[in-house]
Amino acid sequence: MRKLAIAFSLAIGCLAMNAQQALWHSRAVASPEINADNTVTFRLFAPQAGEVVVTGDFLPQQTVSAPQGEFKIPGTATMTMDSLGVWSFTTPEPLSSELYSYNLIVDGLKINDPSNVFRIRDISSITDVFLIPGGRADNYAVHDVPHGSVSKVWYYSPTIGINRRMTIYTPAGYEQNPDRCYPVFYLLHGAGGDENAWSELGRATVILDNMIASGDVEPMIVVMTNGNSGRQAAPGEGSDGFVQPNISMLRSMNGSFETHFPEVVEFVDGNYRTIADKEHRAIAGLSMGGFHSFHISKQFPDMFDFIGLFSAAIFPNESEKSPIYSDLETKLAVQFSKNPNLYYIAIGKDDFLYQQNEALRKLLDEKGYTYEYLETSDGHIWRNWRIYLTDFLPKLFK
Amino acid sequence: MRKLAIAFSLAIGCLAMNAQQALWHSRAVASPEINADNTVTFRLFAPQAGEVVVTGDFLPQQTVSAPQGEFKIPGTATMTMDSLGVWSFTTPEPLSSELYSYNLIVDGLKINDPSNVFRIRDISSITDVFLIPGGRADNYAVHDVPHGSVSKVWYYSPTIGINRRMTIYTPAGYEQNPDRCYPVFYLLHGAGGDENAWSELGRATVILDNMIASGDVEPMIVVMTNGNSGRQAAPGEGSDGFVQPNISMLRSMNGSFETHFPEVVEFVDGNYRTIADKEHRAIAGLSMGGFHSFHISKQFPDMFDFIGLFSAAIFPNESEKSPIYSDLETKLAVQFSKNPNLYYIAIGKDDFLYQQNEALRKLLDEKGYTYEYLETSDGHIWRNWRIYLTDFLPKLFK
Repeated sequence: MRKLAIAFSLAIGCLAMNAQQALWHSRAVASPEINADNTVTFRLFAPQAGEVVVTGDFLPQQTVSAPQGEFKIPGTATMTMDSLGVWSFTTPEPLSSELYSYNLIVDGLKINDPSNVFRIRDISSITDVFLIPGGRADNYAVHDVPHGSVSKVWYYSPTIGINRRMTIYTPAGYEQNPDRCYPVFYLLHGAGGDENAWSELGRATVILDNMIASGDVEPMIVVMTNGNSGRQAAPGEGSDGFVQPNISMLRSMNGSFETHFPEVVEFVDGNYRTIADKEHRAIAGLSMGGFHSFHISKQFPDMFDFIGLFSAAIFPNESEKSPIYSDLETKLAVQFSKNPNLYYIAIGKDDFLYQQNEALRKLLDEKGYTYEYLETSDGHIWRNWRIYLTDFLPKLFK
Repeated sequence: MRKLAIAFSLAIGCLAMNAQQALWHSRAVASPEINADNTVTFRLFAPQAGEVVVTGDFLPQQTVSAPQGEFKIPGTATMTMDSLGVWSFTTPEPLSSELYSYNLIVDGLKINDPSNVFRIRDISSITDVFLIPGGRADNYAVHDVPHGSVSKVWYYSPTIGINRRMTIYTPAGYEQNPDRCYPVFYLLHGAGGDENAWSELGRATVILDNMIASGDVEPMIVVMTNGNSGRQAAPGEGSDGFVQPNISMLRSMNGSFETHFPEVVEFVDGNYRTIADKEHRAIAGLSMGGFHSFHISKQFPDMFDFIGLFSAAIFPNESEKSPIYSDLETKLAVQFSKNPNLYYIAIGKDDFLYQQNEALRKLLDEKGYTYEYLETSDGHIWRNWRIYLTDFLPKLFK
């Protein structure tokens, strides 16, 4: 048996060597490295490259002109190469606590950092991410607190006529307390997103674990649907296979998602231990998901007592004839006559949807409808949507 | 309201434009493109690059010499650039049906294909993937069949003293049949893997959906644990944060995982509708997970009636003194005296653990213990483990 044991030790050595193959073509460098003072160093081993640039949302934005007008893109910083072929850049200032995204650009080619396995996809764009703790982003970091379960679950929609996938969060203790029923929060993504967006880009399930553990948020079930009603699931998760995503195929603001929404609620109430009444249901969404939340909540005014519009697209394109979008003011009058517990609007000063939201607030003000309003800096970005979620959650079911 | 509608149409145009930012630094090319004859074309827009190479498991392997001996690495093929700066390579022959992995190498720098969002991480290596249908890989593709739920669930281990994460698959119909109880299959990963490995690299949950839908496999609960007993969860999912993975920190063959395993079974039986007896429990694993399955199943001989060793590491390193690894032959005698329904061994001819498995079979043969054996081509690779899983599943609980 001794010989076999020795053979096995060699084998494990071999395994480790095979693992090193991952680095076969790239020198192992640490990137990103979060330094003790919260500056961050990026590195890339690329001795043959002529120019390496880092671009990310921690750098000052650049303004670009296009035929449609001016718009902002993430800033860039040029990296410098040492004598060993390692390019590096260290942020000149410490970064404040946040979940940041970046890419590297090597001779004009945008790539992911080969040294960083932590990446998040947004439509067709995959960015590398890192997290600076010590402030706001502490809510976005996994802590050793009781964790809820996160499930990918399929339901059939008779209205849409297909099987569809959603993400369901059940709070810690759900399984251990089989007689307890929970309120439900429906959390909707924006254009280009899917049923993975809020848990990945939004860190929603981590935020929920942390804020429920601290006692700031009520234990609740959170349902993250796929708002692209023509589609089964996120890219690669449906029966159309590995089709590269693009935003045009994902858009869904034709009324079908809103119309079918009671089927989602029925599925959740039928399969989870919910408190199945208006007082224990919330709905919120970002951008297109805010549009969905706005229209669903007024179309079904007895369904949700808590409504959140995060950087919401509000007013429908007039070319969309769905009855969901008609008689807007009449439906709002019915909805507000039933005194929703919370109607919440949040938007950034730089958001391209700011004026739409201003118009909505003006309408609500004129009618005397009560709502809460949060205005932040920045625009139509996930940083804001994590902030809005963190602000919204403690207000629910109280 | 007309003005607002127009503003909204513009806004959506702007959204689309923002989405295009993802491609800001790279020309939109289709890659990989699976051609009608199942050849595959790879493309990269990189006009400044001097050499671009594709490397992947569909190319003939190369043999490399190292101080430890010769070993094989994936083959490479040089791409050629057209006058527009687009590099391309088309496989000379159609590819057979399989899930393939690849990377691009630009002037020596190994990168992910910027045009492909479909990627899988294995330890610190992230490869791009694509799927050729029409044969074996049809089982690895999502089809429009009833889907099970896939959940990330946490349990507390008193033995290890930490909260730990696992992946649990419940078959389609589990929620809709609240009186039905199911058999349970525990499916363990290899060194460097985690609770995500079988569902991602192994396509296990897709395979289960397909094979249960076709009637070849019994509906069952499948539990995919994290076999690295010092760790809570996969990289980025535990409270140590975004720590880059490496294989040395993940290894766990010191007996603690095996010792704590009854706590996993107890958790699953306590929280799911299981048939909680030996006749309705299976365990299998690959490499280190085969090692775990081997030792757990003989240590707890009344727990599992179906045992699968896929490319298994078998014999413990003698430096490990855990009582789990002692009295091997005595424990095997007890286990086989209880006539397990299925003892299954599978390995590839080129596997570096082939001799160990040969020694185990010799031992079983000498003792007259019955087992099933599958020998395939190739070595210690996920392609084989998907094949073994597909072969093993229909034998369970029958």
